[in-house]
Amino acid sequence: MSVSPVSPASPEVPVEPRRYHHRYPVRVYWEDTDAGGIVFYGNYLKFMERARTEWLSALGFGQESMRRAGEGMFIVAETTLRYLKPARLDDQLTVTVVVTEIGRASVTFAQEVWRADTLLTQGMVRIGWVQPVTPRDASVAQAGDEASGEDSFRPARIPARILAILPTPISASKG
Amino acid sequence: MSVSPVSPASPEVPVEPRRYHHRYPVRVYWEDTDAGGIVFYGNYLKFMERARTEWLSALGFGQESMRRAGEGMFIVAETTLRYLKPARLDDQLTVTVVVTEIGRASVTFAQEVWRADTLLTQGMVRIGWVQPVTPRDASVAQAGDEASGEDSFRPARIPARILAILPTPISASKG
Amino acid sequence: MSVSPVSPASPEVPVEPRRYHHRYPVRVYWEDTDAGGIVFYGNYLKFMERARTEWLSALGFGQESMRRAGEGMFIVAETTLRYLKPARLDDQLTVTVVVTEIGRASVTFAQEVWRADTLLTQGMVRIGWVQPVTPRDASVAQAGDEASGEDSFRPARIPARILAILPTPISASKG
Amino acid sequence: MSVSPVSPASPEVPVEPRRYHHRYPVRVYWEDTDAGGIVFYGNYLKFMERARTEWLSALGFGQESMRRAGEGMFIVAETTLRYLKPARLDDQLTVTVVVTEIGRASVTFAQEVWRADTLLTQGMVRIGWVQPVTPRDASVAQAGDEASGEDSFRPARIPARILAILPTPISASKG
Repeated sequence: MSVSPVSPASPEVPVEPRRYHHRYPVRVYWEDTDAGGIVFYGNYLKFMERARTEWLSALGFGQESMRRAGEGMFIVAETTLRYLKPARLDDQLTVTVVVTEIGRASVTFAQEVWRADTLLTQGMVRIGWVQPVTPRDASVAQAGDEASGEDSFRPARIPARILAILPTPISASKG
Repeated sequence: MSVSPVSPASPEVPVEPRRYHHRYPVRVYWEDTDAGGIVFYGNYLKFMERARTEWLSALGFGQESMRRAGEGMFIVAETTLRYLKPARLDDQLTVTVVVTEIGRASVTFAQEVWRADTLLTQGMVRIGWVQPVTPRDASVAQAGDEASGEDSFRPARIPARILAILPTPISASKG
Repeated sequence: MSVSPVSPASPEVPVEPRRYHHRYPVRVYWEDTDAGGIVFYGNYLKFMERARTEWLSALGFGQESMRRAGEGMFIVAETTLRYLKPARLDDQLTVTVVVTEIGRASVTFAQEVWRADTLLTQGMVRIGWVQPVTPRDASVAQAGDEASGEDSFRPARIPARILAILPTPISASKG
Repeated sequence: MSVSPVSPASPEVPVEPRRYHHRYPVRVYWEDTDAGGIVFYGNYLKFMERARTEWLSALGFGQESMRRAGEGMFIVAETTLRYLKPARLDDQLTVTVVVTEIGRASVTFAQEVWRADTLLTQGMVRIGWVQPVTPRDASVAQAGDEASGEDSFRPARIPARILAILPTPISASKG
């Protein structure tokens, strides 16, 4: 976990703005740390989600209004994270968002967490679009019917108006 | 924060079984701790909620089925916690539940977190019963109407069949 | 939980800037919510802590450097919260910080969480200053000695250089 | 996300005891869920960690005492999770632990989360052993020296006495 010295000739090369669809700042608070004195690894998923949410919001996508309208929502289908170096209390981090693939029903991201020019965590997150299986009033009528209730979402094609606002994916090959 | 030696003559006096409506064991995991090396104070609210949930479940109360049936649910209205001594990774704790007051719309608890015979945290938690304001299909129809959506619950009287299963409160005067 | 209509004549009166020592914005993400569709009540403690941390940081107080130097740290000693109205996914909240009392060993805050001009949560948080009981190398030498290890902090007077940067308390009488 | 009917002839076949090194029960509480009405995906990492911790503890491995003695600790180096079906409030889950590979400095696990005979989440978790780089008093002396402080752990060989208690790995090929 040694930190390579950074020569003045190449400052912050990896965080070159055009390579990312979005960058999001995160400060590390007590809530994020664990008794090892570092950020609890599970919390990087939260940091990455915050960055995707702000990016979607900046694109004009209102997750909560679509969810409450019963139109559907993105849920996380797969995550792969490599924890390279630890972050600590008070650290100021940058979480990056890159869309690497857009499919009919899912979107794949490459995400990273940086402290200045040090890469701390690398991740791949795939999210899938789901729709409610039944109208909500139906689920109310069948309350207590666990079997029907437990699968109230199903994978679905991403609505065209969402696809329309998504950017062109950037190949993950250089990641 | 010194620990007084416990004489053999008074082992675990404070955790006398009959004083509690419920006792619930909690092990401290990495997720519960912070960089101070101790349990993050906010997590005691989680420990206390787990204990109340198991107690309600043992009484035959199904929170999730009532919620999904639109009949209502308990939400937390007020919490007061005093953090006396810290818990640490791997500690085996006991969370206690005492009902101290039952009102028309709310139930008040005294809760404690113990490590063996050492009291770590003392709390008061008041929960209130709420019901959906409107049928869910109505909220779907009005999606995007934030004003209507944001208050979709309202305080209500606790249903008689729930009151029927609650135990007689124990005075908090000695707490 | 009804929302009173807000007349145009009194916009945001309660969030008048001079009444607060600090104001901090919080966006509600998925991680903050629970199956009731609202922010999990325990998470307001996190929001309030983030606001206090940013306020301390703005005052020039470095929590992590003092902690790692073994000089001491603030730990939360008491919290009282009233949950008035729920916050929801995507909500943009403002968390306020008011110092209401400064003692020899503790600082008391009144904190609130607002969504625009709607007060959602009111809280009192008291933090106490603690110092390591023993040098860290001593604790290493005694590893496995649970009795000595478990109380490695003790309450202490707040260092003068911290007191020097704290603002004059604002009376909580109108809170 | 449909659930296949389970014939009485094949009850819980996938959770056959001998295939796992450990099985750990988890109840879903409010704290675990999000506004989608399901368990927040990031929390499966917590469930899996709890299961590994109880398994290590059952083997006689005291994480906290080794950490506090400065001997070292396991940190999570990599996680891959596939979220197949959602878990909900009040669900009773089983988290399984299988050691699939033991290297000099890391241990790899296959972990699953089940609700009865329904597989909800599949994961791979790799943990690495790390040791403090410097004695703790040295880190105190250099407080404020961020460059030295930030890498206070380094990867190391797993101590022989820990290797001695680990079980024979089970091939992940059928996972």
